[in-house]
Amino acid sequence: MKTIVFDILNNDNGSSQALAAAVQFAKENNNYKLKLFGDSTQIKDVQLPDNIEFVHSPNLLKKTENLRDVLRTNSSMLDAIKALSEPDHVAILSSGDSGSYLTMATLKIKRLNNISRPAFMPLIPKRKDGSFLLLDVGANLEVKANYLTEWAKLGSLFYSTMNNTQKPSVALMNIGTEDYKGLESHKEANLILKQNKNINYLGFIEPKDIFDKQKNIDVVVCDGYAGNMILKTMETSFLTMGRLIKEAILSTFVSKIGGLLIKKSIKKLGKKFDYRNVGAAYVIGLEKIVLKAHGGSDKKAFLGALNQIKIAIESNVIEKMKQELSEEANV
Amino acid sequence: MKTIVFDILNNDNGSSQALAAAVQFAKENNNYKLKLFGDSTQIKDVQLPDNIEFVHSPNLLKKTENLRDVLRTNSSMLDAIKALSEPDHVAILSSGDSGSYLTMATLKIKRLNNISRPAFMPLIPKRKDGSFLLLDVGANLEVKANYLTEWAKLGSLFYSTMNNTQKPSVALMNIGTEDYKGLESHKEANLILKQNKNINYLGFIEPKDIFDKQKNIDVVVCDGYAGNMILKTMETSFLTMGRLIKEAILSTFVSKIGGLLIKKSIKKLGKKFDYRNVGAAYVIGLEKIVLKAHGGSDKKAFLGALNQIKIAIESNVIEKMKQELSEEANV
Repeated sequence: MKTIVFDILNNDNGSSQALAAAVQFAKENNNYKLKLFGDSTQIKDVQLPDNIEFVHSPNLLKKTENLRDVLRTNSSMLDAIKALSEPDHVAILSSGDSGSYLTMATLKIKRLNNISRPAFMPLIPKRKDGSFLLLDVGANLEVKANYLTEWAKLGSLFYSTMNNTQKPSVALMNIGTEDYKGLESHKEANLILKQNKNINYLGFIEPKDIFDKQKNIDVVVCDGYAGNMILKTMETSFLTMGRLIKEAILSTFVSKIGGLLIKKSIKKLGKKFDYRNVGAAYVIGLEKIVLKAHGGSDKKAFLGALNQIKIAIESNVIEKMKQELSEEANV
Repeated sequence: MKTIVFDILNNDNGSSQALAAAVQFAKENNNYKLKLFGDSTQIKDVQLPDNIEFVHSPNLLKKTENLRDVLRTNSSMLDAIKALSEPDHVAILSSGDSGSYLTMATLKIKRLNNISRPAFMPLIPKRKDGSFLLLDVGANLEVKANYLTEWAKLGSLFYSTMNNTQKPSVALMNIGTEDYKGLESHKEANLILKQNKNINYLGFIEPKDIFDKQKNIDVVVCDGYAGNMILKTMETSFLTMGRLIKEAILSTFVSKIGGLLIKKSIKKLGKKFDYRNVGAAYVIGLEKIVLKAHGGSDKKAFLGALNQIKIAIESNVIEKMKQELSEEANV
């Protein structure tokens, strides 16, 4: 039976929300096993279903300056990552520190063939429906051209498998759309990707193209430095704009009334951009499904992440990436 | 008499809006001279006041792959830049291509003492009142630590002079706030800035801190690559969010009514973030005031930019920067 490994300890709000999500998911999916890593004293009042195995691993992760130290110190996250050495343990979920998680995953899980570096890859709501992939968003600050071209392949394969579509559109983020602009690594990657007939490559884009309805880009490739800045700026801009609008609406009596009338329509929009529906971020490029949930995840967010993992397992995304990447290498 | 040089030709919408702004500014400020560069056939019906000198320079700028080519081809922008060699020609305004403008300014105008590279620096509205400075936003994709520390000094001096305040708060943009995170250049600059007692340095920040009301940061220093991504992501996020909210409001009859009631309050907010009120971006680090207006500027936008230049001239910002930078070098 396929097992999903779950570090329930490293969450900003304790283990209870993660545990509640695990119990519900296990009950609803008795063809899966869940292996939880956490503090057994925190769960003693909870009745676990048969397809949950609980491993007592009570040490919280400590963030350290030298990221490799996380491999030398006991933690539930490290124990969970180590459990993936079992062949039928196919996926992992944690909401702990991204940098540590990434380091452990990178050093403890086998990389896919012909992939130099794993990337951190969130799903972000598109302007209309669905989500697009953004990778890398912080695992690799400085990149070589081949990292970018490999991520373009990974993103394209992942997107087409998960969404059951052919040739998703892929673009490379740059400071301008002209071929001669940007860092050397990006100019080189751009030329290589233009030759790749397996990828529907659109060329360079700028941040303004991300939400362009016409272009409707499925996979946005960037170095981890730009990706990190873009992701965080997007989050803070949306949040700030939302707050400013709220303040403006509350500033007069008339607009307060107007605010009440638009509430329902705006709520729907808020739901679309709620991280709990958007879900988590993948560490992609490895032979296991590695998912990172938001540090402040609640039951709903964890349940969403577990269901994302389920879709990834059932669409055989890892096997398909393995196959395509080795086929391409043999051409 | 102090002269402001104005390339009126390189605008997305022709010369008429720039010309109208110049005429109004000249009439309202007869202690200044304006020297306009453009196509005389486009202005023959316009009565120019005495303090406007018009130079016939009818060649539009051509964008080229090799940026240095812009120095070898005739254009109104190049003629305007060259005019700055006169001592009393203290400032320049253009709405033409940023990359070309920056190249010309960098190579034709003397740099301030102890400044390695000029930076591109827009003013961005703060969450509450006023604006903060963001530099660099694209002039220098790859940086050394000293570029960042020099820009911190420039930004701090510029902000305090223009706003008549002491020790504005300065921060360095990074992927995380811990001292050990980020690119080597940034870690080094962070340590150097912490030792500088002339700057009110807050340390590393992330994009989410830009609009933090409590931190209320006045000067955000970053490399041009991150700055470019942040600026463009901010613009597209605000725009997209605005459109999504509009769509949501128009989606039902009730929220449409609500939309009418909040219109007035929202309009005020829109005004705050309108680029015509926000103004233009400086090229800073040079011995002249160099301002870049938006490519699609209208009369109001150009008038705003000319008035920004006036404030810069009257606060003696260049002289103050010159003095402080050479004093510091003598310590």
